[in-house]
Amino acid sequence: MVDVSGKPSTAREAVARGHIAFTPDALRQVRGGGLKKGDPFETARLAGIMAVKHTAALIPLCHPLPISHADVRITPASDGYDIEARVRTTASTGVEMEALTAVSVAALTVYDMVKAIDKGMVIGEIRLIEKTGGKSGPWKRSR
Amino acid sequence: MVDVSGKPSTAREAVARGHIAFTPDALRQVRGGGLKKGDPFETARLAGIMAVKHTAALIPLCHPLPISHADVRITPASDGYDIEARVRTTASTGVEMEALTAVSVAALTVYDMVKAIDKGMVIGEIRLIEKTGGKSGPWKRSR
Amino acid sequence: MVDVSGKPSTAREAVARGHIAFTPDALRQVRGGGLKKGDPFETARLAGIMAVKHTAALIPLCHPLPISHADVRITPASDGYDIEARVRTTASTGVEMEALTAVSVAALTVYDMVKAIDKGMVIGEIRLIEKTGGKSGPWKRSR
Amino acid sequence: MVDVSGKPSTAREAVARGHIAFTPDALRQVRGGGLKKGDPFETARLAGIMAVKHTAALIPLCHPLPISHADVRITPASDGYDIEARVRTTASTGVEMEALTAVSVAALTVYDMVKAIDKGMVIGEIRLIEKTGGKSGPWKRSR
Amino acid sequence: MVDVSGKPSTAREAVARGHIAFTPDALRQVRGGGLKKGDPFETARLAGIMAVKHTAALIPLCHPLPISHADVRITPASDGYDIEARVRTTASTGVEMEALTAVSVAALTVYDMVKAIDKGMVIGEIRLIEKTGGKSGPWKRSR
Amino acid sequence: MVDVSGKPSTAREAVARGHIAFTPDALRQVRGGGLKKGDPFETARLAGIMAVKHTAALIPLCHPLPISHADVRITPASDGYDIEARVRTTASTGVEMEALTAVSVAALTVYDMVKAIDKGMVIGEIRLIEKTGGKSGPWKRSR
Repeated sequence: MVDVSGKPSTAREAVARGHIAFTPDALRQVRGGGLKKGDPFETARLAGIMAVKHTAALIPLCHPLPISHADVRITPASDGYDIEARVRTTASTGVEMEALTAVSVAALTVYDMVKAIDKGMVIGEIRLIEKTGGKSGPWKRSR
Repeated sequence: MVDVSGKPSTAREAVARGHIAFTPDALRQVRGGGLKKGDPFETARLAGIMAVKHTAALIPLCHPLPISHADVRITPASDGYDIEARVRTTASTGVEMEALTAVSVAALTVYDMVKAIDKGMVIGEIRLIEKTGGKSGPWKRSR
Repeated sequence: MVDVSGKPSTAREAVARGHIAFTPDALRQVRGGGLKKGDPFETARLAGIMAVKHTAALIPLCHPLPISHADVRITPASDGYDIEARVRTTASTGVEMEALTAVSVAALTVYDMVKAIDKGMVIGEIRLIEKTGGKSGPWKRSR
Repeated sequence: MVDVSGKPSTAREAVARGHIAFTPDALRQVRGGGLKKGDPFETARLAGIMAVKHTAALIPLCHPLPISHADVRITPASDGYDIEARVRTTASTGVEMEALTAVSVAALTVYDMVKAIDKGMVIGEIRLIEKTGGKSGPWKRSR
Repeated sequence: MVDVSGKPSTAREAVARGHIAFTPDALRQVRGGGLKKGDPFETARLAGIMAVKHTAALIPLCHPLPISHADVRITPASDGYDIEARVRTTASTGVEMEALTAVSVAALTVYDMVKAIDKGMVIGEIRLIEKTGGKSGPWKRSR
Repeated sequence: MVDVSGKPSTAREAVARGHIAFTPDALRQVRGGGLKKGDPFETARLAGIMAVKHTAALIPLCHPLPISHADVRITPASDGYDIEARVRTTASTGVEMEALTAVSVAALTVYDMVKAIDKGMVIGEIRLIEKTGGKSGPWKRSR
């Protein structure tokens, strides 16, 4: 989505995913639309993309990296929503913390937008799916 | 821990919890000490407390609140660590987003400190336990 | 939109407006939809609301205020879009800088979202419409 | 003004301009000196330069860029002041948002410094004058 | 300088001071004017005032306070410059960290503005002079 | 400590030092342990490392740099503690402001952690020890 530069050969990428579980009643209300605060998923998507820029301010030993791409997708799941973030950098370092932070903040924003109708939501399964780049090389979650 | 003012009668409080699951091998290495980056749990505890101050910068529709107390505790669990945040405000509004953000950022910081030995950690069960204050009144997770 | 507390009698409010002028061709493309970066006006609306929180970081002699409400509306005009921001505080001080900053940042965000198809947009008429509160008392733009 | 590196051949530059209109009475008072808050134009110049660093925090889909030069000039005009910002980067991307943000924040700061004597000021004509670099190549405002 | 509200009876205040020592040659050049980066002391004064707003972002266990006044004065001393910061809050808590941070950042900014002609400057004697308010009550440096 | 990339030949480095003087009584209490707020030196070390990332937000004419390493060491001295910061960048510019800011913020954080038992601490001798890189070339403090 944010494609600042187009250096495909040196780009490092990380993909992270997470989940937010609703109660059935909250799911019905949210899917029926009409939340007072506006579309929770468009707001959460933007908050997740912006969170990439906040990663170094949140994680003490992270330093800011030149980000060339950041995207967040939120898709319906049976009991709530799945969140996926994909982040790329032109630096020779991994961006897994940026992707995990994007997922976490997108999930927190969904919670904030929906909490007037359901405070029991549970955020979980925040995990790295795969990464390339960095000193430790590529990594992919098995199964 | 951070007890800025001492107005007990008007204080609003929120408690949130979360979990980070390690692989057995990573758990053994972390519990044996010797991580190169320093004590991950003291760093994560501080990052969680500081995250309370970043909540309004991360969540689009949150505004900054006067925080009178913020604490984060990280305790060993069978397959990883449990994280609990407790936040109080003197404002007449809820601080559940601050507590949930503190838990999330503490978990992300544990991940960052340990990721050199294990990238498969999973952050989960981030949820509100109880809150007082705000327009919606007190709330407590059942069971 | 963001109604943190409900103290009507002490609330101070400021309303500011501005405008962004497009070329006719850009207007046609934007109104026809299909911008690659997503809905520019929902993103700009959120950026304007969030800018209220950044005001003290941008304007050297502004200090952070407790904001109880912030809203931004973007409506079509003949040659572009009108932007209006409404901000309320519970502090005994004016919030005109917050409202003017919200309008400015919403306009800059529209520019950013549309600049791939038109770099000639002009942002203008950023002005205070009315305010209450603060040492200088109420103020209203004549006509 | 801030010449961090000296890579002339790869530098990308953007120039933006804007205007702030005063009432004749306010213009007389400001030009006569003696504002209580200090020199509004030196403060506004600095605020504009610093705003370049805040651009990515304000505009949701902007990412931070390595800035090699940022300057803001404020010059008297018949009914107020003209503001010009010039920003350079060593990255292969445009910096028009940084230049437009610098102009906007410098104008808002002039407003803040002068608002005790005039709340009717109008900020306008914020526009890109020219740019080089970025995927879209050079651009220059006609006439 | 920044007098946001006028509640004299509840105001808490802190005063801090510090010093920056120059080499005689650097002192002669700076006092003779003509630094390329502009007036170092006006820039440093503003940076010190703005640093009050950054205190909670810098000091892990500080939380943001409602600041009602912040001022920084830089005055010539025999071998350099003295810096004094005065900060007031309407909260029932001390603002000594805000005053000490203002002095530190003003001194660092003087260093930054002058370092092209002298890298040997030494910042020192950063100390609290007096404070009122907070749980620990008033405090005044003896002699 | 934070070794993001491993480009030894182009790395620029700066080393700064400072000092915080305690009263003998405070020194005895701190060295005896048992401060309520936790380990002041681990917190201050982290605050110093994080301050590197805040440098450009604090110093008006500094722009953010790509930091490849940042470390802070706090060691006991006869009347207090010595603080040393070491910062490296991959950019072709000096990082002396980042190192001096890290020392200053680490010292302020020690003050904040210990101020409940001693408000008379004095921060001093903040100075550059040596640097490489930047337009002005290498520099080393004599004696």
